Amino acid sequence: MSNNTRALAEFLAGLRYEDLPQAVVERTEDLFLDWLGSALASQGAHPIPLFERYAQKMGPADGRCQIIVNGQRSSAYFAALVNAASSHLVEQDDLHNSSVLHPATVVFPAALAAAQDLGKSGRELVVACVAGYEAGIRIGEFLGRSHYRIFHTTATVGTLAAAVSVAKLLDFDTEQFVNCLGSAGTQAAGLWEFLRDAADSKQLHTAKAAADGLLAAYLTADGLTGAKNILEGEQGMAAGMSKDADAKWLVDRLGTRWALAETSFKFHASCRHTHPAGDALLALMQREKLGFEQIESVTTRVHQGAIDVLGRVVVPQSVHQAKFSMGTVLGLIAVYGKAGLTEFEQFSLSDPRVSAFREKVSMVLDPEVDGAYPQRWLGRINVQTTDGRQLTSAIDEPKGDPGNTLSRPELEDKFQRLVAFSGARTAAQASELIGKVWQLHKLADVQAIA
Amino acid sequence: MSNNTRALAEFLAGLRYEDLPQAVVERTEDLFLDWLGSALASQGAHPIPLFERYAQKMGPADGRCQIIVNGQRSSAYFAALVNAASSHLVEQDDLHNSSVLHPATVVFPAALAAAQDLGKSGRELVVACVAGYEAGIRIGEFLGRSHYRIFHTTATVGTLAAAVSVAKLLDFDTEQFVNCLGSAGTQAAGLWEFLRDAADSKQLHTAKAAADGLLAAYLTADGLTGAKNILEGEQGMAAGMSKDADAKWLVDRLGTRWALAETSFKFHASCRHTHPAGDALLALMQREKLGFEQIESVTTRVHQGAIDVLGRVVVPQSVHQAKFSMGTVLGLIAVYGKAGLTEFEQFSLSDPRVSAFREKVSMVLDPEVDGAYPQRWLGRINVQTTDGRQLTSAIDEPKGDPGNTLSRPELEDKFQRLVAFSGARTAAQASELIGKVWQLHKLADVQAIA
Repeated sequence: MSNNTRALAEFLAGLRYEDLPQAVVERTEDLFLDWLGSALASQGAHPIPLFERYAQKMGPADGRCQIIVNGQRSSAYFAALVNAASSHLVEQDDLHNSSVLHPATVVFPAALAAAQDLGKSGRELVVACVAGYEAGIRIGEFLGRSHYRIFHTTATVGTLAAAVSVAKLLDFDTEQFVNCLGSAGTQAAGLWEFLRDAADSKQLHTAKAAADGLLAAYLTADGLTGAKNILEGEQGMAAGMSKDADAKWLVDRLGTRWALAETSFKFHASCRHTHPAGDALLALMQREKLGFEQIESVTTRVHQGAIDVLGRVVVPQSVHQAKFSMGTVLGLIAVYGKAGLTEFEQFSLSDPRVSAFREKVSMVLDPEVDGAYPQRWLGRINVQTTDGRQLTSAIDEPKGDPGNTLSRPELEDKFQRLVAFSGARTAAQASELIGKVWQLHKLADVQAIA
Repeated sequence: MSNNTRALAEFLAGLRYEDLPQAVVERTEDLFLDWLGSALASQGAHPIPLFERYAQKMGPADGRCQIIVNGQRSSAYFAALVNAASSHLVEQDDLHNSSVLHPATVVFPAALAAAQDLGKSGRELVVACVAGYEAGIRIGEFLGRSHYRIFHTTATVGTLAAAVSVAKLLDFDTEQFVNCLGSAGTQAAGLWEFLRDAADSKQLHTAKAAADGLLAAYLTADGLTGAKNILEGEQGMAAGMSKDADAKWLVDRLGTRWALAETSFKFHASCRHTHPAGDALLALMQREKLGFEQIESVTTRVHQGAIDVLGRVVVPQSVHQAKFSMGTVLGLIAVYGKAGLTEFEQFSLSDPRVSAFREKVSMVLDPEVDGAYPQRWLGRINVQTTDGRQLTSAIDEPKGDPGNTLSRPELEDKFQRLVAFSGARTAAQASELIGKVWQLHKLADVQAIA
């Protein structure tokens, strides 16, 4: 039985802002803006008001921490809870490929709430968020594909990632980090079962991951102890929740590999598993100058994880579920040239051309794609045209991946679209927020960041 | 893939106070008193004040719900959190054998907090708690022994049991119960890994189970949906967290079998896995008129679950960990004739006779004992005396089991001892509380029950 938790904890305890390459600091700001847009885009949309009301009912009437969607203030616990629920609704938040973790939606809510509560600077917030990403991504990689088959990694691992970011703001030493990981890991939960019912658990998962992680860190600061080997122990996370855990990832190139910088931005407003095929279809239609009505069928050649997550959805019953329907995503891209928030909201369930296209799309497991996953998310499709041609298309890096990333102007544009979608802020207010976030590492405090 | 969740939910939605046999109502009061004693006994003991301070920091300054150990009031969420932490510290709370679930410490905190919040009567509280016990016990049985090997069933299943009891107070229909089980089940967490480090996770587990279950129910009442087959679905609890789940238990004799009435009271203040051997040793020493110094060695013949949970502890480092040391428990019984709170506090770590006896005790897996478990917890020991005799002792129902239960006078005596241990209440106050609890089913409200 190995135990790499202490080595990971030592790295986290020793991490200083000065250690971060400038590109990592800037990418943290990129990811923060991208996250903030997702949080604001869900304003007023079910089930977010339920979490807002829960915070009002169970929490204090006021506090130092901002609930982004309604501008109210509460304690750190409830700010983390609501902000994490709200940033994982519109399926536009970031994703790290090889860990299959959405880090932003769990790390930023917990870290921002704690930073506001503790009066920390933008610089301290940045290094805390980097710590959360670095730990969370490695723990996700460690737990592996078998974990993700049943468990929503963003929920389970997200609890630890959130805890680490708050722990960093609390200036933990190695021993405290070990205890904190123990208390976070033993709270880690979140099952994919809700997907087939289009139930609201995805937001419950991120809400709880961020809030529970914060709870673990605050209780650790006050003296709560946790298991010393929660990740690799005989009755720890890997023992209970993984069949292919690989300890090497936990300490993979700590301090030289910046996993945060590998994180992908989402271009389409759908489950990331649909993006490689979506980009491959778009490339093929542009290359061949095909219209959607000229396509007879699309066979997407995918990794097993895509089948596990997307295979539940046959005929989507809600806009959110449509984001997990490969056929619907490809239908929107085929008919409208894109699958953004507006296309989903207006056309994903009601446009008969999209539903008809959905029926033409199938998924098959492809050994090459599956073998490359989760390090690389390859797009491979076969298209049969109505005039009998057999065409193929392949893309190796979906739009938003590190090698095909979004520039700051593209991120600003995406942020403006997200904010306009819900009407949470005016374009001018959004521009002001953008300006603040691009200065995040210089802010003396982060009280009014959203 | 089967789905018995709806059948269970229908039973829970339809359950009425009038359906409960009088003996079940009375046993609920017995269990409630027993639970209240455990909650009060932990006053001031680490790590309970950490949870109290967390509630003060994150929760409202006042509320309708009582935090038992400090008399403060808060929202339902934080009352459930602190009361559940406090009632699982001294290892005197109840246990249901075949589910290996401690129901009281998760059901009563959640149900009492919700009943106070919602202004419910004692009668409504009783039926809600029965619902929580009946559901939780069956779900624990369903998940089976493989679950308990890695997961702390009281934490995982406790989340659902707590949710069900609060759901009953919220008058849920079948559909709402299904959703609520989904939202509770996807939060279910808690790993045994902390045991080998004597870490504080056991109280974190029950705190979170009760509070998370309450959260699931309140959010369901407001419209949050959950997975429809969280227990048996392909990506549900059994798929992720069990290898021997058996669906038949979920709906086992609903309405005729009252699982609550099968719950055991704890006589010794230690992990229940030590009790069968402890009772067997006591019986043998009394029968043979042996003193502890006449015993050369004790071989306890146990079920695998005892080895999994107790096998971690070699030399206990804390009083709490000593409660998970078979040798220490048997040492206290051998030297002092009992292993109560006071014996643990004063002698478990410091009396050299107890430590010496501890070294004489071993555990071996016994096929008969293991085969009977978890339905029956058999006590089987072999003793070698210093004068060379080989003796054996067997008990089939440890003290506190349904067939060897505690009477109301014995429960009152235990309650007085628990309360005196921490000094949380005077003997007269304790007597008054006892009187109230024996009238629980008649109380118009439960505001001042503790």
